[in-house]
Amino acid sequence: MQTQTAQIQGLIDRIGDQGSAHQYRTKSGSTQTFPVLIENHQQGLKAIFQVLSELSLLTTISDLLCIGHRVVHGGEKFCQPALIDAAVLAEIKKTIPLAPLHNPANTIGIEEAMDYAKGVPQVAVFDTAFHQTMPDYAFRYAVPTQWYAEQGVRRYGFHGTSHFYVAKQAAQYLNKPLETLNLITLHLGNGASMAAIAAGESIDTTMGMTPLEGLMMGTRSGDLDPAIVFYLSRTLGLANNEIDNALNKQSGLKGICGENDMRAVHKMADEGDQQAQLALAMYSYRIKKYIGAYTAVLGRVDALVFTGGIGEHDAWLREQCCSELSVLGIELDAIKNQQSQGDLREINQAGSLAKVLVIATNEELEIAQQAEQCVVG
Amino acid sequence: MQTQTAQIQGLIDRIGDQGSAHQYRTKSGSTQTFPVLIENHQQGLKAIFQVLSELSLLTTISDLLCIGHRVVHGGEKFCQPALIDAAVLAEIKKTIPLAPLHNPANTIGIEEAMDYAKGVPQVAVFDTAFHQTMPDYAFRYAVPTQWYAEQGVRRYGFHGTSHFYVAKQAAQYLNKPLETLNLITLHLGNGASMAAIAAGESIDTTMGMTPLEGLMMGTRSGDLDPAIVFYLSRTLGLANNEIDNALNKQSGLKGICGENDMRAVHKMADEGDQQAQLALAMYSYRIKKYIGAYTAVLGRVDALVFTGGIGEHDAWLREQCCSELSVLGIELDAIKNQQSQGDLREINQAGSLAKVLVIATNEELEIAQQAEQCVVG
Repeated sequence: MQTQTAQIQGLIDRIGDQGSAHQYRTKSGSTQTFPVLIENHQQGLKAIFQVLSELSLLTTISDLLCIGHRVVHGGEKFCQPALIDAAVLAEIKKTIPLAPLHNPANTIGIEEAMDYAKGVPQVAVFDTAFHQTMPDYAFRYAVPTQWYAEQGVRRYGFHGTSHFYVAKQAAQYLNKPLETLNLITLHLGNGASMAAIAAGESIDTTMGMTPLEGLMMGTRSGDLDPAIVFYLSRTLGLANNEIDNALNKQSGLKGICGENDMRAVHKMADEGDQQAQLALAMYSYRIKKYIGAYTAVLGRVDALVFTGGIGEHDAWLREQCCSELSVLGIELDAIKNQQSQGDLREINQAGSLAKVLVIATNEELEIAQQAEQCVVG
Repeated sequence: MQTQTAQIQGLIDRIGDQGSAHQYRTKSGSTQTFPVLIENHQQGLKAIFQVLSELSLLTTISDLLCIGHRVVHGGEKFCQPALIDAAVLAEIKKTIPLAPLHNPANTIGIEEAMDYAKGVPQVAVFDTAFHQTMPDYAFRYAVPTQWYAEQGVRRYGFHGTSHFYVAKQAAQYLNKPLETLNLITLHLGNGASMAAIAAGESIDTTMGMTPLEGLMMGTRSGDLDPAIVFYLSRTLGLANNEIDNALNKQSGLKGICGENDMRAVHKMADEGDQQAQLALAMYSYRIKKYIGAYTAVLGRVDALVFTGGIGEHDAWLREQCCSELSVLGIELDAIKNQQSQGDLREINQAGSLAKVLVIATNEELEIAQQAEQCVVG
């Protein structure tokens, strides 16, 4: 934590499957992949600690200050990281209906880690927590009140750890306290969301009750007339789970041009594929609309911050999103946008009212710092 | 048509029901209501023509130059009003799946009028037509392409007749050709939508494939995470038609505070009702976001135009929607907003980059003019 550098990064893929594998990369090394049968999460943790031990990164488990868990959904309960005990775990389990794909797996990970690393404090860091500062008029949907009161139907927002991390980095670069800054942060990866940050706090974000709403993504539709669901079930006889699956996995860039990887979409578009060109035009147009929407609600924007795989590396897209936005006080420098390098870059023209920054996100570091702070205080 | 004034306005309500009634108002008179049993649309037309004859507004049916029909959905086929023949009628019937509540009734009205007023030209004026100029990146949803190609899943937009009418009025007032103007038009009635108009053409609008998407309305939710539909069917076991009904008829202002009439909502809010205050905050917040979004895509906004029952009469709401928007070059004059009178009012400060206008809409006149032009050429 002193150097704020990851000693090792890794992942275990396809747990419980014949094709399971353990992949990791040390600070100095390249990524190595070991096909190894991992039948469950407990075996996965064992494999991880074995590697840490073999590489002398850890002598005993109790050397760990804590373990930080990324938890996708914290509902309305968690606006801060939480030291996990039985009560916290029970609360996380209560949010499973809100995130049926993510929170069950998160819960297993926590339980196995608590069991395997007994005595090591475990901290849950929630992807929704940063957005809990949204005012009610931004997070409520205009649906029957009891759906909110009894079923928790509201905007929660996600990617909070990343939005918060880059907001703090921006404040440091701008040399001003975060609580004095209005920012629009754009986390554009395979999933994508934007946040409107007023005086350092999230006041609105594009993802909603689930990560389906908002921007167009790799395979997710983003914003959609909800009546389309009813129309498709009437005209095509599709079941809701089929439509749900199509909107989450067969839509977005993939739905329009067949590819969900932005680099592949660019290649197709460069070769003249009209569907890929349409996908890019839609993707950037929707971002532009939200830049305008958030400028309107913020009143003053100190900086626009691009992050995430696409946000950090796709200069063409950044230019599209910011083109002809001088009405909002946003003026990109085309050369800086194309040529600047590094984890934090300023790419606006000198006279631009709002800065435009590109900042590499680091959710793992943010989780580690929040977990450390939660344990050490 | 020479005076552009309606000689009589009327409606027949609850056709086929015990409570059916005929209501009308002449140019000089007040509204009169006659409870009368109207069993079907044919009887309704008969009753209408009888009144026109009794009041000496019409001697014979053949005195009519034409009959204009408002048709809600024209699909992708109609970007102009259409003189109705068998082929046009067949096309209107093809769009019934897109507007299952509206187009069947429209079709009956047309067929009965063609039968009753034989030889009188009938013209269909489509609520979707004005928005057919939207570019593909604005009207396409990021869903599987075949849903668009085979099922017509796209943004159509509605209230086109009203948006077009007030845009033309604004151009006349600003003394500039419509095709040189960028406008944001806000039709705020029981249904509500906004349009972004670039060089006189609609390039985006808030309603989508159906009138459910976009702004918060009297009883409609407007924008919503589409996954909420799946969530409610999972957790509450609601059927899609129940959710559809709730989102269209039990949501919006009504869903939040129990009232769908804006005047009643204001009264509650003034009396301290927090749900009504929340409903107003949500309603104006969402409009503000779209003002920002459309400013971003238009690049330059010559005027913001408020219309519709709420847009024309709710000064408080207009102020909320425009508050702290100087970042977009929009500066309302609070006094003019409160005190100005008339069918066309300018309510911005002298230095405001964008004008803010309040213009009374007149969809009937627009339909009459478009129908006349379609017949006379």
